Amino acid sequence: MPDPVIALSMPRPDRMIAWRDELQRHLPGFRVAGTDDITDPETVRYAVVWKPPTGLIAGYPNLRAVVSIGAGIDHVAADSRYPTHVPVIKTIGPNMTQRMREYIALHVLRHHREQPAVAAAQARREWDQRVIPPATRRRVGILGMGHLGRAAAQTLRALGFDVAGWSRSGAGADGVPGYAQDRLDEFLGRSEILVCLLPLTDDTRGILNAATLGKLPKEASIINAARGDHVIEDDLLAGLESGHLSHATLDVFATEPLPRDHPFWTHPKVTVTPHVASLIDPASGGRVIADNIKAFEAGQHVPDLTRIDRGY
Amino acid sequence: MPDPVIALSMPRPDRMIAWRDELQRHLPGFRVAGTDDITDPETVRYAVVWKPPTGLIAGYPNLRAVVSIGAGIDHVAADSRYPTHVPVIKTIGPNMTQRMREYIALHVLRHHREQPAVAAAQARREWDQRVIPPATRRRVGILGMGHLGRAAAQTLRALGFDVAGWSRSGAGADGVPGYAQDRLDEFLGRSEILVCLLPLTDDTRGILNAATLGKLPKEASIINAARGDHVIEDDLLAGLESGHLSHATLDVFATEPLPRDHPFWTHPKVTVTPHVASLIDPASGGRVIADNIKAFEAGQHVPDLTRIDRGY
Repeated sequence: MPDPVIALSMPRPDRMIAWRDELQRHLPGFRVAGTDDITDPETVRYAVVWKPPTGLIAGYPNLRAVVSIGAGIDHVAADSRYPTHVPVIKTIGPNMTQRMREYIALHVLRHHREQPAVAAAQARREWDQRVIPPATRRRVGILGMGHLGRAAAQTLRALGFDVAGWSRSGAGADGVPGYAQDRLDEFLGRSEILVCLLPLTDDTRGILNAATLGKLPKEASIINAARGDHVIEDDLLAGLESGHLSHATLDVFATEPLPRDHPFWTHPKVTVTPHVASLIDPASGGRVIADNIKAFEAGQHVPDLTRIDRGY
Repeated sequence: MPDPVIALSMPRPDRMIAWRDELQRHLPGFRVAGTDDITDPETVRYAVVWKPPTGLIAGYPNLRAVVSIGAGIDHVAADSRYPTHVPVIKTIGPNMTQRMREYIALHVLRHHREQPAVAAAQARREWDQRVIPPATRRRVGILGMGHLGRAAAQTLRALGFDVAGWSRSGAGADGVPGYAQDRLDEFLGRSEILVCLLPLTDDTRGILNAATLGKLPKEASIINAARGDHVIEDDLLAGLESGHLSHATLDVFATEPLPRDHPFWTHPKVTVTPHVASLIDPASGGRVIADNIKAFEAGQHVPDLTRIDRGY
């Protein structure tokens, strides 16, 4: 009997070879193959995907689980023909968490210490000694207290910041108070630097809009390392123009790569990073995915197992 | 009998009033006065100073101690007529330590995540996804493991970096190996990001020169938050020009404010910050100084007490 198949699907074929080799190395009992190389869909037991084409998953009748190459499952849920009984396994390895901690620490510190203004003063050759409070007097809010949100919150807390988190459950973390869903206004009102690490669901799409951004304190700033669709871009631009918001650092966008004529590229109050906050690489990501598939196959508990209709 | 006097000397008289008021509030048994307002030098018991004029200290015959408004004492030692029997108290409060931790974390992360290159790509509207190793594979070296060096080392270690420290004694810190004086070359050879937090003494002046910078790994970067005179500026510029060094972030300079025609201002590989890494403010610094003076007056142990001929 031939080995069961793991189907691999990602938009950039140039990246696929490294992933296939890495997964194959860790999962010798399977044949790992790009979806184009699969002739018998009935042999596919797992699909490892990033932004799979609509209907791809539905075409594998014997699928046991889909693996998202990343912490979010919105790119899988976007498939309108997804068979909802097939569970999804998210991928969140220590490397991804480490990278996200770095990104959030860097950009919160950059906003806190007003580095964009310091750089502008350098460009003008001005010795401009701005007096900035210590981080202990800077209030940071984390939208989304999942695995990455909690890790970010604790990293910022260790750096001295006054951190709070907002999530559906209202759960906090060690030293980080949690605000539940019904206390969003109160949470926004205290967030001088707002960090978005929410999953993208029907409830959170467009959550950063004129109404919510307007509830932030004057000259607040935002950092979005979640999904572009969390932000209503025109509302964000209006908030920056009016001076209500001082800066936005954005890693994710409604359209990626960000189109060359998009106003974010050249806006003096916007820092653009090209969806690199927490890149997943084949070497570390491949091991995490293989371990999750092995555990699932053995009937063991997989903490990052979820359902598509849960949304995250 | 009139109250004993605390003489206050700093180059910027506009900042003196806040310091005088704050110290006076905490030290009611003394009269706190600017040096220009002191008519009887014999009444001066303590001098609280930043860059005191040459001979000022020698003019107070009954001085018990000099207080440096800052962690360094080089600006006091620069007085060739300093009476070496008068002890010096350094000022390192929790606020200063907090601010230095923030500065070092921000700029090490900025170098590590190649934010200058990310910003340059933004200016060109390029979606340039650079693959960067996690901090766990980034080696940072801290020159100087005093109070601020140790705090910086531990902050970076908590962020995931692979950190080592170099100091006269070779003492490390929790999870941070220490290199002693005779292992400087080995220490430099491992430091992809080199942070200078040394005291400025005859031994450390010009320590960042062509020979030492040349021992850093290719494309290393440096961050200097200590004193401008630690760096031979022409050697640093040559290292940046040759491509051996990728970036320098400098908070301190041989001449401050940095002259408007200095090449650092416009160099694409240099980030200039205007000596703000760890600003000391009257509110928190005044309390630390007052507490140190009270402890010294009561004959108690003052951990930051030193001698001018020790150099730091």
